[in-house]
Amino acid sequence: MTARTLESDARGGIPRTATFRDPQIEMAHGAGGKATRRLVETLIAPILLDRAAQLGDAAVIDVGRQVVAMTADAFVVQPLTFPGGSIGTLAVHGTVNDLAVSGAVPKALLVTFVLEAGLPGDILEAEVRAIAQAAQHAGVVIVGGDTKVVEHGKADGMYVTTAGIGIPDPRACLSASAVAPGDRILLSGPIGDHGVTVLLARGQVALDAELRSDTRSVWPLVNRMLAAAGAGVRWMRDPTRGGVATALNELAQDTGLAIALYEEDVPVREEVRGVSEILGLDPLHIANEGQFLAVVAPDYADVAVAALRATPGGEQAAIVGEMREQPTGTVIACSSYGTTRVIDMLVGDPLPRIC
Amino acid sequence: MTARTLESDARGGIPRTATFRDPQIEMAHGAGGKATRRLVETLIAPILLDRAAQLGDAAVIDVGRQVVAMTADAFVVQPLTFPGGSIGTLAVHGTVNDLAVSGAVPKALLVTFVLEAGLPGDILEAEVRAIAQAAQHAGVVIVGGDTKVVEHGKADGMYVTTAGIGIPDPRACLSASAVAPGDRILLSGPIGDHGVTVLLARGQVALDAELRSDTRSVWPLVNRMLAAAGAGVRWMRDPTRGGVATALNELAQDTGLAIALYEEDVPVREEVRGVSEILGLDPLHIANEGQFLAVVAPDYADVAVAALRATPGGEQAAIVGEMREQPTGTVIACSSYGTTRVIDMLVGDPLPRIC
Repeated sequence: MTARTLESDARGGIPRTATFRDPQIEMAHGAGGKATRRLVETLIAPILLDRAAQLGDAAVIDVGRQVVAMTADAFVVQPLTFPGGSIGTLAVHGTVNDLAVSGAVPKALLVTFVLEAGLPGDILEAEVRAIAQAAQHAGVVIVGGDTKVVEHGKADGMYVTTAGIGIPDPRACLSASAVAPGDRILLSGPIGDHGVTVLLARGQVALDAELRSDTRSVWPLVNRMLAAAGAGVRWMRDPTRGGVATALNELAQDTGLAIALYEEDVPVREEVRGVSEILGLDPLHIANEGQFLAVVAPDYADVAVAALRATPGGEQAAIVGEMREQPTGTVIACSSYGTTRVIDMLVGDPLPRIC
Repeated sequence: MTARTLESDARGGIPRTATFRDPQIEMAHGAGGKATRRLVETLIAPILLDRAAQLGDAAVIDVGRQVVAMTADAFVVQPLTFPGGSIGTLAVHGTVNDLAVSGAVPKALLVTFVLEAGLPGDILEAEVRAIAQAAQHAGVVIVGGDTKVVEHGKADGMYVTTAGIGIPDPRACLSASAVAPGDRILLSGPIGDHGVTVLLARGQVALDAELRSDTRSVWPLVNRMLAAAGAGVRWMRDPTRGGVATALNELAQDTGLAIALYEEDVPVREEVRGVSEILGLDPLHIANEGQFLAVVAPDYADVAVAALRATPGGEQAAIVGEMREQPTGTVIACSSYGTTRVIDMLVGDPLPRIC
């Protein structure tokens, strides 16, 4: 969510109009799809956010002599640890990545904990170490935080919230309004690894797969892409809850354009495809924690992909679609056989508590 | 927690030494007293925080051309609403006040929610409105946030975390190392209102009192005090969890000095004193959410108190103690009869989930 300036705060009186009519909060409101968007757009944003704010990954605000980017994320993943990561690594990477895809160099984090009474000290210590290590690898410092404790039976061990600050990178001139028909859509790597890994870590489905969460900082990839093709990069987003399908639907709606998705070019590991098919899930709706989407002007697309592929962890980056004029606000998957289907936002919550 | 600069990040390898040996997390670790300090000082801070960081209310960091103050706080108060406020107003004021007592003008907030499935939509809307209104009154804009949902039975309706950013006020030159024997200790108003109000709102004790939480932004009071006596103000702190006794003990330990507390001069409402006596609580250990302590050089103390008393909401401000050489690291309450007693930090958690 983005606010261009603090100084323009001419917000009128409270209350403002909230049109949220769902009688109660359901798990789907936290899943990152349609229900989440309805909650944020019809209740939280109209009442809470500065009028200059726009829904996005990080706020960009003037503070005295410097423009900074800020973002905050809450993490409630279950289980706390899973192959490739844990709630602590997610909490660091989630906030670092929101800054990175906003075109800001991540600088510092604040970390708050809500701890469950009875949590073993060594589990807490392990997560604190995981956070410290992830922050160090991501090149950010942790400058403060807070700790609260709730009764046993609440908070599932721990919930973690991170808030981050970054400095806008002058190479990144991002604006959804600059996205134009013909622009290419880039994806940094294979999708669905995180969501499927966490699902399997719960042990509720009798499936096994050699998978790890993709949780990582995407800043090294973003950095290299901006260095190679910054002037052509129009928009970035990390497709977490709700997956690539939800992120692209939001892009289509925000730009009033259409998106043609070359579904066969979307990298998906065989294990992810296999588990998804068995469970009736679409990898396009599954959460990622170490990938990003970018919209790049056509003249810059090849060099941007080449830069990503030349960066460790970006080997499978691909052009996976393009912006089109029609049908406005819609994402269409196109196959090499000429068939098409509409890709909708996530509805409901097939994978709760994924981040 | 304070980090002087982002640029000095020469943090060595992970892991660093953690000496926390408590086998599991207990409610007392969240109460703001000795156990909280042990958790933060022996586990979280040594592993997590930037080496330049010091424990305090907000981090002060260089971001490009501007120094900013940042802080984050988690709120888990039960019940969600109580006379004079709610979790939403607390969440705004808690973070605004941490910035204010760090000598920073509060500017912007990020707000994250962990919501319990089943929470009625109108309760959420009421809290979102409370947050918006409190922010508007406090002069801060809300620029973003995040929402997660957990299953029914977790999260007690909602937990709220706020992160805030402010700009250091040049009138405030705060440093615990500048605190000297003879400096006066100022208190902005009566203590214990918040803690006792929340306790009574739970309905678990058959007592009734005409009390309201003191939750409010202290920035207007801090602002007037800095205008009148900024050059003499050495240190500020808002005595929330753990109360005045804990904040002063931390000051005594951090400065290596002693504190003489003129206990009879500490403003306490009759209702707070009455309920505290019945329940065996010391008002000095009870949480406040709209008061602050300041250490002021002797020549500035009277003008600082006069400035507070002339500001709405500061009418009961008082000089309540002074710094002394001996006994180092100790808070001693002195009565007009010449008697003294040692005032310790809060031990245990007599009032859980107070903020």
